[in-house]
Amino acid sequence: MLSPELVKEALRKNKVKGENYRGLEYLRFTDDFKDIPRGTILFKESVIWGYPHIGRIFQLSSGLREQFNAPFFVEEKVDGYNVRIFYHEGQVLAVTRGGFVCPFTTDRVEEFIDADFFKENPHLVLCAEVAGPENPYVDESPPYIREDIRFFVFDVMVKGEQRFLPYRQKLQLIEKYRLPSVERYGLYDVSKIGELKALLRRLNEEGREGVVFKEDSERDKRVKYITSYANLQDIRITSLNLMGLPADYYTNRLLRLALFMEEEGLQLEEDLLKELGSAFLEGIFEAIRQSKEEGRVYRTFRCRFRKKESALLFMEQIQHSSSQVQIIERGLKQEGSYWILEFDRVYLNMTGFLGHVLGGGSVFD
Amino acid sequence: MLSPELVKEALRKNKVKGENYRGLEYLRFTDDFKDIPRGTILFKESVIWGYPHIGRIFQLSSGLREQFNAPFFVEEKVDGYNVRIFYHEGQVLAVTRGGFVCPFTTDRVEEFIDADFFKENPHLVLCAEVAGPENPYVDESPPYIREDIRFFVFDVMVKGEQRFLPYRQKLQLIEKYRLPSVERYGLYDVSKIGELKALLRRLNEEGREGVVFKEDSERDKRVKYITSYANLQDIRITSLNLMGLPADYYTNRLLRLALFMEEEGLQLEEDLLKELGSAFLEGIFEAIRQSKEEGRVYRTFRCRFRKKESALLFMEQIQHSSSQVQIIERGLKQEGSYWILEFDRVYLNMTGFLGHVLGGGSVFD
Repeated sequence: MLSPELVKEALRKNKVKGENYRGLEYLRFTDDFKDIPRGTILFKESVIWGYPHIGRIFQLSSGLREQFNAPFFVEEKVDGYNVRIFYHEGQVLAVTRGGFVCPFTTDRVEEFIDADFFKENPHLVLCAEVAGPENPYVDESPPYIREDIRFFVFDVMVKGEQRFLPYRQKLQLIEKYRLPSVERYGLYDVSKIGELKALLRRLNEEGREGVVFKEDSERDKRVKYITSYANLQDIRITSLNLMGLPADYYTNRLLRLALFMEEEGLQLEEDLLKELGSAFLEGIFEAIRQSKEEGRVYRTFRCRFRKKESALLFMEQIQHSSSQVQIIERGLKQEGSYWILEFDRVYLNMTGFLGHVLGGGSVFD
Repeated sequence: MLSPELVKEALRKNKVKGENYRGLEYLRFTDDFKDIPRGTILFKESVIWGYPHIGRIFQLSSGLREQFNAPFFVEEKVDGYNVRIFYHEGQVLAVTRGGFVCPFTTDRVEEFIDADFFKENPHLVLCAEVAGPENPYVDESPPYIREDIRFFVFDVMVKGEQRFLPYRQKLQLIEKYRLPSVERYGLYDVSKIGELKALLRRLNEEGREGVVFKEDSERDKRVKYITSYANLQDIRITSLNLMGLPADYYTNRLLRLALFMEEEGLQLEEDLLKELGSAFLEGIFEAIRQSKEEGRVYRTFRCRFRKKESALLFMEQIQHSSSQVQIIERGLKQEGSYWILEFDRVYLNMTGFLGHVLGGGSVFD
């Protein structure tokens, strides 16, 4: 457990907030605090540690040599949202990276994770990515997921402990309980940079986000590396909401893109330059069209719930999740065994700015 | 004059700083303070008001209708740096937008501005843009200036007064003293939007920055409007130093570019998309090349002085102008009647970041 003094200090410094999920009370770290990562949550009797930050390398060959002292496993990095899944007082809960119990993910988790896993391992926490075109958080989705969502387990933690189970032990659990998991590409070392580059080129062509490298050693060092596809895709998807993102979102991706290309010996070919240009401009053009025709800039999300009450709770919970986004429900209706929720995220910065300047307003910048 | 109480308050709030130019002491407003613009400077006996902010419109047709109540003059906006030029105790001084007496501009001003102007009008302040490939501040230059610099007067102020001389009075002075000035396109009103759009399309093709509209009325309302060429060019020129600019620099320009194109009915044509992609990536590729081959990311500036001591003073003054840029002198040598100064601006953010990641370092972002 975390020491009560530390928790009190974090409370005093506003790094911890009380939350309530269907009557279940818990504390949530809203920011990193000392060595406690954001998203760490505390129940009366247990701690679920936040998923740690993973460093990013920008070039494979120098990066892997610099970062690793031993061979490393290579796994796919899936483009979705990060959850931790665990058993707590009679129910399986799924918690987002930020530490919110998610009514959507919690509603759906039992369709993807064998219930026996938690019956037999109530002390474990599965770390997984949830991805797919019908997820309620992320506008992007891996091209190989055609509908709904999928779960991809990539790590296992022990409740109350700030570390992961060893890689081979994780594999045994994945196999034993047939857990859905990320693709694994095997054990490599720095003599295999050529093969790894070829792997990354293939993943890039397949539209995958990238990989995570995990050292096969006690210290379990990890770094991640992203394809140029994913960087372009990030720009393409978010340019509709260009003013709503942290300021360095785009410069970071441009640098990653250039460094990926430079290392792969990719020239500044016309197709790629065009793709980058259109990634920026098509979203902005669509935002201008929405502003003119509909008076707001938004994107529609759709997701499937098993229980209607989960959908209602989800809507209530995301209502006030951001001051820069307004959530507007489009509808909730039953289809087969699911409740289909549709809602819009209205991007208030873009809506306000475009409304102002298209109406002839001036800006002092 | 400004009231002594106001100046004292500004000093207390750190909005004013004492400066010294060759023994001449003055106070400089380092930020906007109440209605006093940044760059306003105070001598013992006089005030030179800062050049005011001018609002930007993003679309011509709605913007002009919304902003103006009367016909307006249209002038070229030249891409250089803004100075105020005036006579003070026996010398003509040129002050930058930020309020520094500039040793470079001051050294050169008499070659461009007829000395009679200040002899006969010691109470006036000329507001001008200085532009050209051999200016020490701005990486960009209008394509029609092949070498050195040129001055472009666009406004005249009265010392101690926070307003401009009326447009026609300014014209008389420009003619009488043959002052170099920005191009003027005449008096328009909102019924001539079609002609203005055609003008802007032409300026765009000629690689000009844009225009400033000045209402022909007592209130002298102004707004500016920028071509898509200038927005692309800003990106192209600065992408070498992608991490050194304010975070919203690029998103602002992308929005302006898209709004210009949208209004002009320009499609997302391949050439433009390619141009935008290369504007971002070629600069970053060049930064990577510099980092690998020279260990630093930089751009070389060159400018001509009449007096050696002006060049030395200039170098001293810009040495500490930014914590994100290091100034390194490359050389100072006499050529004909000029002293040619060459120096590098080393972009420390890019140099540090690329050095780190090309060497295999990881980043937590």
